[in-house]
Amino acid sequence: MRQSVLLLPGDYIGQEIVPEAQKVLARVCELYDLDISTDSALIGGAAYEAEGDPLPASTLEKARAADAILLGAVGGPAFDHLDRDLRPEKGLLRIRSELGLFGNLRPAIMYPQLVDASSLKPELVSGLDILIVRELTGGIYFGQPRGIRTLENGEREGFNTYVYSESEIRRIAKLAFELAAKRGGRVCSVDKANVLEATVLWREVVTELAADYPNVELEHMYVDNAAMQLVRAPKQFDVIVTGNMFGDILSDAAAMLTGSIGMLPSASLNESGQGIYEPCHGSAPDIAGQGKANPLATILSVAMMLRYSLGCPAGADCIEAAVGQVLDQGLRTADIVSRDGVSISTSEMGNAVVAAL
Amino acid sequence: MRQSVLLLPGDYIGQEIVPEAQKVLARVCELYDLDISTDSALIGGAAYEAEGDPLPASTLEKARAADAILLGAVGGPAFDHLDRDLRPEKGLLRIRSELGLFGNLRPAIMYPQLVDASSLKPELVSGLDILIVRELTGGIYFGQPRGIRTLENGEREGFNTYVYSESEIRRIAKLAFELAAKRGGRVCSVDKANVLEATVLWREVVTELAADYPNVELEHMYVDNAAMQLVRAPKQFDVIVTGNMFGDILSDAAAMLTGSIGMLPSASLNESGQGIYEPCHGSAPDIAGQGKANPLATILSVAMMLRYSLGCPAGADCIEAAVGQVLDQGLRTADIVSRDGVSISTSEMGNAVVAAL
Ligand SMILES: CC(C)[C@H](C(=O)O)[C@@H](O)C(=O)O
Ligand SMILES: CC(C)[C@H](C(=O)O)[C@@H](O)C(=O)O
Repeated sequence: MRQSVLLLPGDYIGQEIVPEAQKVLARVCELYDLDISTDSALIGGAAYEAEGDPLPASTLEKARAADAILLGAVGGPAFDHLDRDLRPEKGLLRIRSELGLFGNLRPAIMYPQLVDASSLKPELVSGLDILIVRELTGGIYFGQPRGIRTLENGEREGFNTYVYSESEIRRIAKLAFELAAKRGGRVCSVDKANVLEATVLWREVVTELAADYPNVELEHMYVDNAAMQLVRAPKQFDVIVTGNMFGDILSDAAAMLTGSIGMLPSASLNESGQGIYEPCHGSAPDIAGQGKANPLATILSVAMMLRYSLGCPAGADCIEAAVGQVLDQGLRTADIVSRDGVSISTSEMGNAVVAAL
Repeated sequence: MRQSVLLLPGDYIGQEIVPEAQKVLARVCELYDLDISTDSALIGGAAYEAEGDPLPASTLEKARAADAILLGAVGGPAFDHLDRDLRPEKGLLRIRSELGLFGNLRPAIMYPQLVDASSLKPELVSGLDILIVRELTGGIYFGQPRGIRTLENGEREGFNTYVYSESEIRRIAKLAFELAAKRGGRVCSVDKANVLEATVLWREVVTELAADYPNVELEHMYVDNAAMQLVRAPKQFDVIVTGNMFGDILSDAAAMLTGSIGMLPSASLNESGQGIYEPCHGSAPDIAGQGKANPLATILSVAMMLRYSLGCPAGADCIEAAVGQVLDQGLRTADIVSRDGVSISTSEMGNAVVAAL
């Protein structure tokens, strides 16, 4: 069965890391006899520059037709002067919404070879393996009404709407319970039910759904406490499920616990299993064009793609093992190199993973 | 001039730590010849049990009349079954709003004696001194409309409104700039202006106001990045200013960086300099009644009270120095004791501070 992958390199280092991940995908296709066609398209600032739109219709059309999408990163200060609707981030938010990618999986995994890179003491993070499941197409990111209005007294006021319906909550919670059942068997649902009505409903629906998963343990935590517990004792968590905004904040904090934001992949899935796979890090304009970027987060995103959208978990395992191997060999890009270590380039790292497959 | 302080011990360990702080305040009054009367009242679960309301009218009346308020902590699982409007937290939210306490100051300071208690590596936190300035009476905490409604298709939806007016933003930003001018001279304003219109206005107003403070350096940061930077390199921050919700999350994360949530005070101020002073930690039902609670956060809240509401900065300095001294003496409550150390009780700690004044 022929499957198709759309490449959306995006901006800055996105252009450097996606080709490395593509090499890895090509080699996995050979090894596992997969018939995968690839195409590419523009998104973000690159799309704005070429077509005046951070998500051109042609890109969206190709995206809808693809079985999976590999995205680099979008954005950068060069686009900050643009009207909000034309900014690179808007392209990302729109494609998530258009494709219905409600389920954002963000693992925070501590690679044993990189424990020293963490800000936290080794005993607190060695063996860390958290999966953050963030709702991605609802909440305050997309709630209406929103905007800036002028009040009667003449001053302006900015407003947004935080909103979740029962079905939106149930859908993301179900994904979290199902993923938890296949790993540590624990879900921590994060809300602010002592203050926000929207999350009172969240807590209620998640609790109700838990009855369908007797083998999964459910805990509720307020978001302020969750932020604190992530710093205090992160290994207490298995799967964390939360809304769009809280997930944005907590997943970045969790990622940083591992000391290696350049290592962390993500998947954003819709109900038919189609997904966008992308590194958790951004487009890093400061190091773009220098061959310094770490391609491993993007390469590991290919592994998630094989697992969740392309039906080839063995290929996913193979990539993850190869990444472990190159780390064991001591190979490091600049972001994860130790003080007196030698770093290799983006493409050297890509080649090393291909060789280790 | 006679001044008045209202004590609101609240629930659980609140009842144990406030008396210790009261001892310290009494001794400072003697030393600095201050004429301060104290009274006390009920709030939170204790008030609900006695009067069926977490913020009785009599408490609010006394609070309005006081120059400053010292609060212990409110809440606990015993009250979770209550209707939301009757819960202890609601008493806290209401008193903040009724008194107009828009400016919440939450220092995160690393005590040199406690560096080992931090989750972070010593070099990342030693000398840490951040001040988080959180807007406390607006944003999504109080925005209207809010609630849970039933949609046409029969399912329910929970919703809240994130809203800030120009004057609300200007007021809290001004406080942050003024505080920054007296310390490190740097303000980091945290928003999510790439997604939320409410925070687009926030960024605009803060930027505008910065022109009035040429000696203070202003930086803007997205909240997800701020959460990450707090873990990665917290010493990059001086003053952080942000809205109610983001401030709730970031201040808890920042507090935990110091490894000693039992050590951190807070102040919540209104435009006339009146304030509620309270520890950052909660009511800790699990250790209540055992004499184990750390009273230092509450004692340090008295120091903030002397500085910001009672016009006695020398008394504040004196308390802070005394706390440093008891830590130097090796005195520790259970929450900050080292693995093989001996811990002292709540009242022993209170007495030690009084002796060191
Ligand atoms: C770029 C931005 C709009 C985006 C978000 O907030 O979702 C990013 O922070 C992320 O987490 O993918
Ligand atoms: C108890 C709760 C309502 C409160 C808040 O969210 O403001 C608390 O977390 C705090 O930070 O003081």
